[in-house]
Amino acid sequence: MGSAVAQCPHGITSHSTGNLGQKKLGYSSRCSKFPCQLDFARFGLLHQGSSAASSSDHSTEFGRRINAVPDMDDMFWDKVPTPLLDMVENPIHLKNLSVQELKELASEIRSELSCIMSEKPNSLKASLAVVELTIAIHHVFHAPVDKILWDVGEQTYAHKILTGRRALMRMMRQKNGLSSFTSRFESEYDSFGTGHGCNSVSAGLGMAIARDIKGKRDRVVTVISNATTLAGQVYEAMSNAGYLDSNMIVILNDSRRSLHPKIEQEPKTSITALSSTLIKIQSSKSFRKFRITKRIGRGMHELAAKFDEYARGMIGPQGSTLFEELGLYYIGPVDGHNLEDLICVLQQVSSLDSMGPVLIHVITEDNHQDAECNEKIEADNPQEGMITISLSLKLKSNNVQTRTYSDCLVDSLLMEAEKHKDIVLVHAGMEMEPSFQVLQETFADRFFDVGMAEQHAVTFSAGLSRGGLRPFCIIPSTFLQRAYDQVVHDVDRQKIPVRFVITSAGLVGNSGPVYCGAFDVTFMSCLPNMIVMAPSDEDELVDMVATAAQIDDRPVCFRYPRGAIVRTDHFMHPGIPLEIGKGRVLVEGKEVALLGYGAMVQNCLKAQALLSRLGIEVTVADARFCKPLDTELLTLLCENHKFLITVEEGSIGGFASHVAQFIALNGHLDGTVKVMNIRNFHFW
Amino acid sequence: MGSAVAQCPHGITSHSTGNLGQKKLGYSSRCSKFPCQLDFARFGLLHQGSSAASSSDHSTEFGRRINAVPDMDDMFWDKVPTPLLDMVENPIHLKNLSVQELKELASEIRSELSCIMSEKPNSLKASLAVVELTIAIHHVFHAPVDKILWDVGEQTYAHKILTGRRALMRMMRQKNGLSSFTSRFESEYDSFGTGHGCNSVSAGLGMAIARDIKGKRDRVVTVISNATTLAGQVYEAMSNAGYLDSNMIVILNDSRRSLHPKIEQEPKTSITALSSTLIKIQSSKSFRKFRITKRIGRGMHELAAKFDEYARGMIGPQGSTLFEELGLYYIGPVDGHNLEDLICVLQQVSSLDSMGPVLIHVITEDNHQDAECNEKIEADNPQEGMITISLSLKLKSNNVQTRTYSDCLVDSLLMEAEKHKDIVLVHAGMEMEPSFQVLQETFADRFFDVGMAEQHAVTFSAGLSRGGLRPFCIIPSTFLQRAYDQVVHDVDRQKIPVRFVITSAGLVGNSGPVYCGAFDVTFMSCLPNMIVMAPSDEDELVDMVATAAQIDDRPVCFRYPRGAIVRTDHFMHPGIPLEIGKGRVLVEGKEVALLGYGAMVQNCLKAQALLSRLGIEVTVADARFCKPLDTELLTLLCENHKFLITVEEGSIGGFASHVAQFIALNGHLDGTVKVMNIRNFHFW
Repeated sequence: MGSAVAQCPHGITSHSTGNLGQKKLGYSSRCSKFPCQLDFARFGLLHQGSSAASSSDHSTEFGRRINAVPDMDDMFWDKVPTPLLDMVENPIHLKNLSVQELKELASEIRSELSCIMSEKPNSLKASLAVVELTIAIHHVFHAPVDKILWDVGEQTYAHKILTGRRALMRMMRQKNGLSSFTSRFESEYDSFGTGHGCNSVSAGLGMAIARDIKGKRDRVVTVISNATTLAGQVYEAMSNAGYLDSNMIVILNDSRRSLHPKIEQEPKTSITALSSTLIKIQSSKSFRKFRITKRIGRGMHELAAKFDEYARGMIGPQGSTLFEELGLYYIGPVDGHNLEDLICVLQQVSSLDSMGPVLIHVITEDNHQDAECNEKIEADNPQEGMITISLSLKLKSNNVQTRTYSDCLVDSLLMEAEKHKDIVLVHAGMEMEPSFQVLQETFADRFFDVGMAEQHAVTFSAGLSRGGLRPFCIIPSTFLQRAYDQVVHDVDRQKIPVRFVITSAGLVGNSGPVYCGAFDVTFMSCLPNMIVMAPSDEDELVDMVATAAQIDDRPVCFRYPRGAIVRTDHFMHPGIPLEIGKGRVLVEGKEVALLGYGAMVQNCLKAQALLSRLGIEVTVADARFCKPLDTELLTLLCENHKFLITVEEGSIGGFASHVAQFIALNGHLDGTVKVMNIRNFHFW
Repeated sequence: MGSAVAQCPHGITSHSTGNLGQKKLGYSSRCSKFPCQLDFARFGLLHQGSSAASSSDHSTEFGRRINAVPDMDDMFWDKVPTPLLDMVENPIHLKNLSVQELKELASEIRSELSCIMSEKPNSLKASLAVVELTIAIHHVFHAPVDKILWDVGEQTYAHKILTGRRALMRMMRQKNGLSSFTSRFESEYDSFGTGHGCNSVSAGLGMAIARDIKGKRDRVVTVISNATTLAGQVYEAMSNAGYLDSNMIVILNDSRRSLHPKIEQEPKTSITALSSTLIKIQSSKSFRKFRITKRIGRGMHELAAKFDEYARGMIGPQGSTLFEELGLYYIGPVDGHNLEDLICVLQQVSSLDSMGPVLIHVITEDNHQDAECNEKIEADNPQEGMITISLSLKLKSNNVQTRTYSDCLVDSLLMEAEKHKDIVLVHAGMEMEPSFQVLQETFADRFFDVGMAEQHAVTFSAGLSRGGLRPFCIIPSTFLQRAYDQVVHDVDRQKIPVRFVITSAGLVGNSGPVYCGAFDVTFMSCLPNMIVMAPSDEDELVDMVATAAQIDDRPVCFRYPRGAIVRTDHFMHPGIPLEIGKGRVLVEGKEVALLGYGAMVQNCLKAQALLSRLGIEVTVADARFCKPLDTELLTLLCENHKFLITVEEGSIGGFASHVAQFIALNGHLDGTVKVMNIRNFHFW
């Protein structure tokens, strides 16, 4: 490894192996049965960069985590040997590897990922698709000086493995473990945090402009997926990149799944030997002169440039001229599993000094596995070949055992649709929960999944409502943030009856802060016309669906958490519309009143049960509505108790603040009652 | 007028003149010196439609407004005669007019608009640009059964004149007057509310899908402007429209100003006789067979369809294939001032039964005035010809007299930029305040105005910050809503120091609810890492700019109102960074404490001055920070007063709620103090 001398033009040789071993954290690499030749700290490198982005918090945090890593031999006894990967401590070690070695490295990463991700088939697919692309990027570019940005968490796993986090991969999505997204707090190789998709071109452009202003020469590479091209921000960013004309490389990782769903109807562009040659020509300097005529030229040159654009449009697949129109120079399609092609194109592009923004269209296969790797996996670990089947079965059996709030919503919507024939459903967000597939099948032409286009989803729902239908707009809490202005102006201000179903509200388990629905109660409850409610259990959910279906003169929203419902008998009663702004008392007690909002009412009931064993009689009330508040109920609770404790999964400005403001302003605190609140989201 | 029989295929003959005069509201049309031939209610028609959209609130509301309309003869004594326009009470009256008459009508509307809008040169330009387009749309389509949607308020003035609101045009932006946007509460001809731009394609698609589901046959026409094509939602909507393939017509009103600012560098596409013919061919049925092969065909057909697409791309201007890639059939460019062409193309398109979404690219000139109209205006009203000059002078003189918070921000940023050489500025929003032009000129390559791309602006700022610069991101309060998710996830969660300057916070005068900044305190204060502050006057603003420039470990925001600053001497002291989370007491009093947030502190001081004359000594405190709250100050105020009154321009969940929650939870209300709050935004 001492021989890994980088061809690095930006003065980052301080990252070379000469520094390895400086920070021994007591962790000896034992991730395979094969003795590892490197006995230095895997993570010591993390903070030796010259990057402005380095944070002093990293080292201590990581030291703590690594000491907690279990003995790898115990976990990986059945692991495929990974001799090359074992040599790679950080991306600089890729520099001197031959293409053949890089291909072997790809196989090893595939095998490692298959092993780590075996219980998450969808994540595995997405992460396997970009293995070669990740290797090519890190082979050609010089992170962390060059900035590599990603849009989607799952596509960063190979990147995480190659940037010093291999030993922690098994602890992904666990307490104190790795994030499943990139995070600037986790590694200096993560230039920017992913999570909600579609932000990397904007952030990358910012970094490119900052570099230009500071007179630096590092490169900015952003990888976007075809799912994120449904989101408007990507177009805003690309259009601005085309205008500002700063050097940056946008790589579209096109897994041919969903750029526009219609594309699948048409034959896929095959990547032939011819197109492979053409791409190399496109990315070469001489061909790019066309581009220069386009940028400098006026009048007659314009036609030549247009000819270039359309000629390449005729060669290239659908989508190519779209990027050209936005001002990006299009290169592609490139086979995302052909390392020679990828490296050639990236090297050509990276060597251009003045290029403006370039889009490289890379086609990847979710299910791509090279033959050798497949054989290895099957031989060494026979059950791996069955991942998909066994996991679908597992999922199915899980579904039978655990009924979720979303399942309950689906059944309830099916019931309401019997009563109201004009119900239509709009869904938006990064991906759809499996429960909603039933809706998609049953409603067929009345279910619209628009993907990562939340802004459109909300206004589209308002349009459906104005067209005389009864829309339910289903969006996870955290993604509803992306459509806040549309909720305010296209729905609430115009008092248009759209029914927002806010899913994944509150904490979302191991998906962490990126998907956590912390703020919806706050930002929805301040809107003048919106009715804001939350069910405390599945029966209430059914009733709230009925309530929302019935309300036809104003917008309404209700939130429910990710996860399992309360009851186990799975009996569905027909939904009965609730009285607007009326809560209910579940248990009558004395002295202390617990006022829960949403699913937290269940925690109040648990607390009440525990306290009653200690002889303390506690009142439990279910607020049901945050707006309008049940002021009668609040008054009663204040008058008859010494303590009123609100319990919710939300942030400041939400339910507790509405309650506190009401009782403070109405003099209820002048008496004997004291108020407290319990919330989850004081901090991230 | 009785002869105005419409060629209306959708059974909307109930809108014909047979019903005219049913609702006499006592308003006799007297808008010109020429005796009006129609003595029936101009607005009685508003609610006789069969549209599902009609609301019973309209008539009474309008009756009230019309009774308040002043005598038009007094106002329009110098008005150009408008004999044709006087005959048009609603769009059905355009049906039987010849093209020549429609041209004359266009001249009359131009003259009317020039007269009405003389004091708003920019609005006048935008509204004049679409006069022919508006006439052509209402001549060909049958509103309100056919749905006409707009993106930008200023482009709807001709539409308002033609849809029964002519007499109220002078009362636009006045109390109880017309909105300067479309509003479904104002007229059934306004299918959807405009205001924030870029929503009309989404809303229109919703209406088109609702129509298909209900088995109706009305047409949906949305008019977007080139400014709104900077906004991501338009791409989300067009891409979804291309996928859903429902019949709808999107008209791009391209004033050649800012589709992408770069376009101006290139020669404009000239609309020649040849292109005019080509457009008619494009919109014809036979040519559209190409389109059908594209949609149905596979394999070999694909190439033919591609050829069609690129062939038209070669003919058409930049931008055409962009729309094709998104799935819209592109027709254009069409001369937006040639009524024959417009009517021909719209009729061709409207007659196609199964067409999918179509984009008609219409080129308009902001300054277009036909020669005849120019002469008329100059002859009858000599000062009209001088509009631009006199108004720029007026604006200039206004600037001298009235210094605004934005002017103060600009000077302050210029001062800070001397200290911090790494300051960069990002601006987003529908249009830029004139004050910021100084920044644009002074900072040149460090000022980025991205237009209606707020999502991008926020993440771009985060990228600039990660690149080592010191970004200020300037966005009006109401448009920051469009980037809320980016604020949450790309800035706050990642604790990236971006400094948000929230302009137009609070009430915005005659721009009304559409631009009013009601919610920013609420939705920014719930974020864990954000520092939230508001200056009470221009000195505080300068200090807060300095504070924000200095903070470099977390995001910060401050809001200021539209309008004039407090002091008149215009002396600028250098900004001194404030202590974070510390308010100040401005006046020491007894019993009553007024705690103001932001510009409302000035109102507190005024109240204090009034009360002191009555012998009531009131304490006035300036909170400065909403987050972190100055809890020491709050405790002091509670302990030493009987009443604590918070005063702010914000909604529930904001400053008052934070205060109420703190004092309620900390037992300050157990003593003698009572709390009250004064807010503006209980309702729209």
